[in-house]
Amino acid sequence: MPELPCEIVRAEGGRIGLLVIDGLGGLPHGERGLSELEQAHIPNLDDLARRSSVGRVQLLSTGLTPGSGPGHLSLFGYDPMELEFGRGLLEALGSDYPLSGGEVAARGNFCTLDGSGSITDRRAGRPTTEDCARLCEKLCAEVELDGGTLTLLPGKEHRFTAVFGAPGLGARVNDNDPQVEGRAPYQFRGRDDTSAHTAALANCFFEQAHSILGEEKHANGVLLRGFSTRPVLDQFSERFRLNAVGIAIYPMYRGAARLVGMEVIESAGNDLGDQIKVTEKNFDLYDFFFIHTKPADTAGHTGDFAQKIRALEEIDKHIPSLERLGFDVLAITGDHSTPCVRKEHSWHPVPLLIHSNFTIPVAEATFDERGVLKGDLGVVRGPELMSLLLAHAGRLDKYGA
Amino acid sequence: MPELPCEIVRAEGGRIGLLVIDGLGGLPHGERGLSELEQAHIPNLDDLARRSSVGRVQLLSTGLTPGSGPGHLSLFGYDPMELEFGRGLLEALGSDYPLSGGEVAARGNFCTLDGSGSITDRRAGRPTTEDCARLCEKLCAEVELDGGTLTLLPGKEHRFTAVFGAPGLGARVNDNDPQVEGRAPYQFRGRDDTSAHTAALANCFFEQAHSILGEEKHANGVLLRGFSTRPVLDQFSERFRLNAVGIAIYPMYRGAARLVGMEVIESAGNDLGDQIKVTEKNFDLYDFFFIHTKPADTAGHTGDFAQKIRALEEIDKHIPSLERLGFDVLAITGDHSTPCVRKEHSWHPVPLLIHSNFTIPVAEATFDERGVLKGDLGVVRGPELMSLLLAHAGRLDKYGA
Repeated sequence: MPELPCEIVRAEGGRIGLLVIDGLGGLPHGERGLSELEQAHIPNLDDLARRSSVGRVQLLSTGLTPGSGPGHLSLFGYDPMELEFGRGLLEALGSDYPLSGGEVAARGNFCTLDGSGSITDRRAGRPTTEDCARLCEKLCAEVELDGGTLTLLPGKEHRFTAVFGAPGLGARVNDNDPQVEGRAPYQFRGRDDTSAHTAALANCFFEQAHSILGEEKHANGVLLRGFSTRPVLDQFSERFRLNAVGIAIYPMYRGAARLVGMEVIESAGNDLGDQIKVTEKNFDLYDFFFIHTKPADTAGHTGDFAQKIRALEEIDKHIPSLERLGFDVLAITGDHSTPCVRKEHSWHPVPLLIHSNFTIPVAEATFDERGVLKGDLGVVRGPELMSLLLAHAGRLDKYGA
Repeated sequence: MPELPCEIVRAEGGRIGLLVIDGLGGLPHGERGLSELEQAHIPNLDDLARRSSVGRVQLLSTGLTPGSGPGHLSLFGYDPMELEFGRGLLEALGSDYPLSGGEVAARGNFCTLDGSGSITDRRAGRPTTEDCARLCEKLCAEVELDGGTLTLLPGKEHRFTAVFGAPGLGARVNDNDPQVEGRAPYQFRGRDDTSAHTAALANCFFEQAHSILGEEKHANGVLLRGFSTRPVLDQFSERFRLNAVGIAIYPMYRGAARLVGMEVIESAGNDLGDQIKVTEKNFDLYDFFFIHTKPADTAGHTGDFAQKIRALEEIDKHIPSLERLGFDVLAITGDHSTPCVRKEHSWHPVPLLIHSNFTIPVAEATFDERGVLKGDLGVVRGPELMSLLLAHAGRLDKYGA
């Protein structure tokens, strides 16, 4: 964990806004060799950058590409590489399921098993998302676990999340997915007593699912991996003494906000314009606003350069109204880069801008990968960003006499 | 150790070339105030820098000057400050001696002892290198250790390496060199049982050497320091899932490569041109190539500014053929700086260039101490460089969902 001594965190101070532009960073593209941000017409962001401290955020250690969960935890001041939590937790959060203390979540796949119990297709021929929902519903109705509950959250195609509930369940359970076809799934085993309980529930689920789904042409088995409990995190309110709220349209990001104890606005609207209105409406109620916007990342994943530029230009139009809200500190960055040339997340540090009364602006800076190199912030480690925002908000005492 | 979780390292991906220009970095010199790299005519390196991500590598923590062993281990992704190994190991590796698990190596000096056993010259009047070889041969022929073997590797002038062999020898043995003249060498003592065995062998060697060398005018005693075993390192192939090879002309660097489990080409030729041919010949056999070139460092140590410039210009001529080999990722840096004005290694971070399809080139960059400041890489910690190279080669999964 980063070193922010709790005794220097003040309960009072300025209001902070953190706009997370998902997948913000990009890479040079095409003949002109300009990145998405460099090619986009973003006069408001560039103007704000010239009046701000700018630099980059590195979410994880050098060269590592963050998933969205770790990327957000890092921005929220938690070192994701020191937190142990599995895929299951993130999947549950991604399905807007507030995993509680007594529950264990695992990422699930429907698969195809042959007569001998060997896996012939780890993804059950990729059922439709509708089919996945039907299969989950069927299992939920018929599976009966002795000594525990089962909740299934359908995902896309073959994917679902399984949540087991019973007092004191452990998550040190192996995946049953052998990761190759032609083999039978492994038995679940727990590495301690509380995890043995979870493993027993999971084995029972596996057997019953195979029997209940016997008539299905493809999806007649289940594979589970990444068993995880909800980690016990210091909550945002204690750690940073902030009354924080998340204003996100997508469930995954509301889940990430909830994980650190932020409140969450359930109806954040349909776009950044709506989110800014929601922020304005709640402006006096909170002192930290996490605002998440997704479209730039989506365009990055599809590799649609023009679309990512449009997404960034659309965001840019909302910057003046965001500024007008009057945050004492306004930070704009991303949870990771999603360069169109890669169509996936990347390890490159993400542009960062911090606007307050205590910045060191550089006139030549612009809000893009190369423009921010001219700024004063250099590379800020993700989990240390919160310290910087608290400092700018006058929420940190000096350290030592 | 740096944080590279092993589960995200892929077995497949692009081919990586790492050219280590020993002693690469320099310092401003003379009236024009230009460094060796700045004054050298290196159009190919400068051109490559403008098409690459550039910055600097810091091998150890801030202000610390790396020896060649730690410098290389750092570049290879191992934190030399967390590894305990002594001078003896590096000397043995430097003599191309593959220290095995049951052996302990120590750096040795021939010294002069007076009639009372006190040291009158810690370097025995600096014997010639030929004399050193003769003395080692004589000792090897006549010393007989009870319960262990002795191997002596002659070095330059008064220097040699002593290797003791016996099952389970420990290395927690003090130096016998008091570091001043006028005192008798210390007795060797082991700080645990296995090291007591080593100390007994070393004391026995000391006594016999003094007796055997009694006729020598100067070199009639031996001083040993830096007892060390071969550290148990994760091997490169497991840690990074790379099939790696070292192509180095000097033994020390082949030794460093071997230490982390790289294969080594025994006949790497006489210069960088030969090494590039060897690389080409083996290109399909490996997915990581460590290529080491020495002359710039040698010129730095002698303080010959013009010679270091020539060495850099000579390297520059080979850059096009190195590029033509077609690495997916080509990195060029050094294991430390060796500024001519210091005639020794220095703590200054070393210029770094990474060429791949996923870089953020900066048009103003050049490949020298000040030119790389304009780049996007900033200061990369040495042990994290490998993560960056793996990322560029598409060999890392993202971290977390």
